[in-house]
Amino acid sequence: MTQTRINERGETLGRYIADSQQRRHPDEVLHEARRALVDYLGLALVAAHDPVVVPLRGTVRRWQARGKARIVLGGTTTPALAALVNGTAVHAMDYDDVHYLGAGHPGAPCWSTALAIGQEHGDDEQRVLAAFVAGVEVMARLGGGFVPGVGRSLQRKGFHPTSVVGRMGAAAVAASLYGLDATRSLHALSNAATTAGGLVASFGTHGKPFHAGKAAMDGILAADLAAEGYIGANHAFELQGGWLDAFIQDRQVEVPPLDFDARYELLRNGYKLYASCRATHASAQTAQALVDAIRGRDVKRVRVKVHPGALVTAGKTAPSTGLEAKFSVACCVAMALSGYRLAWTDFVDETLADPRIKALLPRIEIEPVVGQSPASAHVTVELADGDVLRESTSVILGHPENPVPDAGLTEKFRALAEPVIGVTAADALLDAAWRFGEAGTLARIDTLLKGEK
Amino acid sequence: MTQTRINERGETLGRYIADSQQRRHPDEVLHEARRALVDYLGLALVAAHDPVVVPLRGTVRRWQARGKARIVLGGTTTPALAALVNGTAVHAMDYDDVHYLGAGHPGAPCWSTALAIGQEHGDDEQRVLAAFVAGVEVMARLGGGFVPGVGRSLQRKGFHPTSVVGRMGAAAVAASLYGLDATRSLHALSNAATTAGGLVASFGTHGKPFHAGKAAMDGILAADLAAEGYIGANHAFELQGGWLDAFIQDRQVEVPPLDFDARYELLRNGYKLYASCRATHASAQTAQALVDAIRGRDVKRVRVKVHPGALVTAGKTAPSTGLEAKFSVACCVAMALSGYRLAWTDFVDETLADPRIKALLPRIEIEPVVGQSPASAHVTVELADGDVLRESTSVILGHPENPVPDAGLTEKFRALAEPVIGVTAADALLDAAWRFGEAGTLARIDTLLKGEK
Repeated sequence: MTQTRINERGETLGRYIADSQQRRHPDEVLHEARRALVDYLGLALVAAHDPVVVPLRGTVRRWQARGKARIVLGGTTTPALAALVNGTAVHAMDYDDVHYLGAGHPGAPCWSTALAIGQEHGDDEQRVLAAFVAGVEVMARLGGGFVPGVGRSLQRKGFHPTSVVGRMGAAAVAASLYGLDATRSLHALSNAATTAGGLVASFGTHGKPFHAGKAAMDGILAADLAAEGYIGANHAFELQGGWLDAFIQDRQVEVPPLDFDARYELLRNGYKLYASCRATHASAQTAQALVDAIRGRDVKRVRVKVHPGALVTAGKTAPSTGLEAKFSVACCVAMALSGYRLAWTDFVDETLADPRIKALLPRIEIEPVVGQSPASAHVTVELADGDVLRESTSVILGHPENPVPDAGLTEKFRALAEPVIGVTAADALLDAAWRFGEAGTLARIDTLLKGEK
Repeated sequence: MTQTRINERGETLGRYIADSQQRRHPDEVLHEARRALVDYLGLALVAAHDPVVVPLRGTVRRWQARGKARIVLGGTTTPALAALVNGTAVHAMDYDDVHYLGAGHPGAPCWSTALAIGQEHGDDEQRVLAAFVAGVEVMARLGGGFVPGVGRSLQRKGFHPTSVVGRMGAAAVAASLYGLDATRSLHALSNAATTAGGLVASFGTHGKPFHAGKAAMDGILAADLAAEGYIGANHAFELQGGWLDAFIQDRQVEVPPLDFDARYELLRNGYKLYASCRATHASAQTAQALVDAIRGRDVKRVRVKVHPGALVTAGKTAPSTGLEAKFSVACCVAMALSGYRLAWTDFVDETLADPRIKALLPRIEIEPVVGQSPASAHVTVELADGDVLRESTSVILGHPENPVPDAGLTEKFRALAEPVIGVTAADALLDAAWRFGEAGTLARIDTLLKGEK
């Protein structure tokens, strides 16, 4: 029943997690963790009572578990269940952070776990930050690699990367906060791997956001078991005979190295500033740059050059609902040219009834260009007066090579949080998030997430 | 976010579960459910404090969930966590029931779920029985098919069938007890599928038995969510684009039909009467038939003809521990010829020191025969007085074609339960299990599983 041989990759992973509270990270890395927290908190608030979250709240009530972990805008419960609810909420709109090398969405599983366990055990904020960093680094290395890396291969095979490797990230966060040694940390990861799943077939249902919350829940369970002495498979993370063989059965995959000392995957985290499909972002951003120039003038024709994939996922030409508008490059361009910020509150049916949108939409032509980068777009606006305006984006804002400024994240947070908890509480929460790491910030966040209820 | 098209297989599954409380099953089917319960309860008791179960008990304490579901030899908690602990205990020794067409071990996930939810909601015993039958029928159809069926293909691909389809079985049990309609029942199954996992890489660690308990836990979560309105993927169980594509990526699999009206998969459930590797069973059973004939006489030589696979999994010739003896055809034959029943308590190091075993073991020769059935064995005993005794088994006891009699299951139960709770309580528990379905039997079982603590 016991298996004790430690393998090389497993040993590296276990040791990294066991040492994670001793590591000193550059300020920019800790700041990036806070940026992810700002993004996380806004989304958790706005989706706290989303239809996808309500059934989870009911289920948590059924289970009657006690603890100090905060359910956003709700009571407290055991960390695993709080993380289940909060992690699902954050991913409810597909508007959360995304790892640019394909490991999925790190914030939902990793911050849900870090906050819940930190609250349960009254952890020091510096420890919570360190655990979050460790979780993202583990998750992104196990699931990263761009093309043909692990995350994108998982997705091609029918598994949701956020769900699969999010469990390992959450388990790493929890193991770090529990102070597990290298062997137990590895067993936490193995327990997470042996609970991993999450079907792409669930996309378009409540299942997708649930995957992120379930990853956090199962990651915490995995670490709880390891803390209690549970023995998992030491070889689960080797390149043969482990989890990868089961999930990517043709083994056509390049696995990134476990080079924890060489780089920070957290710095490859990206953010979405528009509440629409990512494939619309480069075009919308490019169009936004032309708003001032066309104001008050009659637009005759708009031509947009995009990566061909943009039309696969966001090719709707005549959206009829706010939700459909999220998947329409043309509509997002029309909205951007009309001065909409493409905030969450802009994607409502009323926007489609706006006379400016109605007038612009038929005049927008989308041209897919083979070989064009998905991060880029080119917009040409022909005006009735004969002027022609041109604007290009080579690397979209939100890409790690063109990161969203802090002000952009703050603005996104305000747009999400203020309608839910009001300006004063949103201000206070924002302040605590940007200062996270200072003593007392964890408790302040907990208090502010109680909401009115 | 909502997806409403119901597909053919999904519709059949959902409707079967929704109708499961109205179905009238033949007595032999209900009796087979009780046989599975007798087997289940003995194993749950003997492994209640197994090393694989102790960390789960600690974790359940951490989660502080309340409910009326009984943890075997422990307190009560919410059904999902009780099922997690109990389901793991029952599979701890690989001694639980097994579906002969490859869907894994149905009892652990399905009875754990049925008892836990039945206790929580004070369900009528007839409802609990009906839910259990429905769970096994769903689990076995989704995971069955022999070769190249689903379960065996899952295993070949690196996934543990009990873990993967056990979730669907548990979800079906819970959905049946909750009285969900066809749509919600299908969503319960889809939620289960999208949480499914369980690595073969975990075999040989605590992970394997944990898979059975986790399947029950996740199945209950899946049904809880569906009861609260959660929407899963209606097409998850179709032959393309669903869970099968993700788990068996080369699609080299024959999927059994959903012929719920045509047959009972529960009648294909098998039981293990010897606490050893299944590959030793045919030989041990054949040898047992010769015990009386050789008593008091000097054995010169024993020859055993077996299926070649028996030596792959149980080929140890000189075991040095009780655990190794489980994986030794030769030792199991020596034990059987010496009058051991091969009960759980027989596989201890002391047995190997028994002079009869020490004398017999070197005289036993195992001959693998290509083409011989795994269910068969042939034993020839040459005695010092010149007599030659022969005995054969064509279909091993425990195979559905040669079912274990009720007395055999009773004997197994007593061997497991009496050392744990004593003869009187074991008698009472056995009585309640064999009468399960009568009013009051669920409460009696609950009381008897409290144990002394």
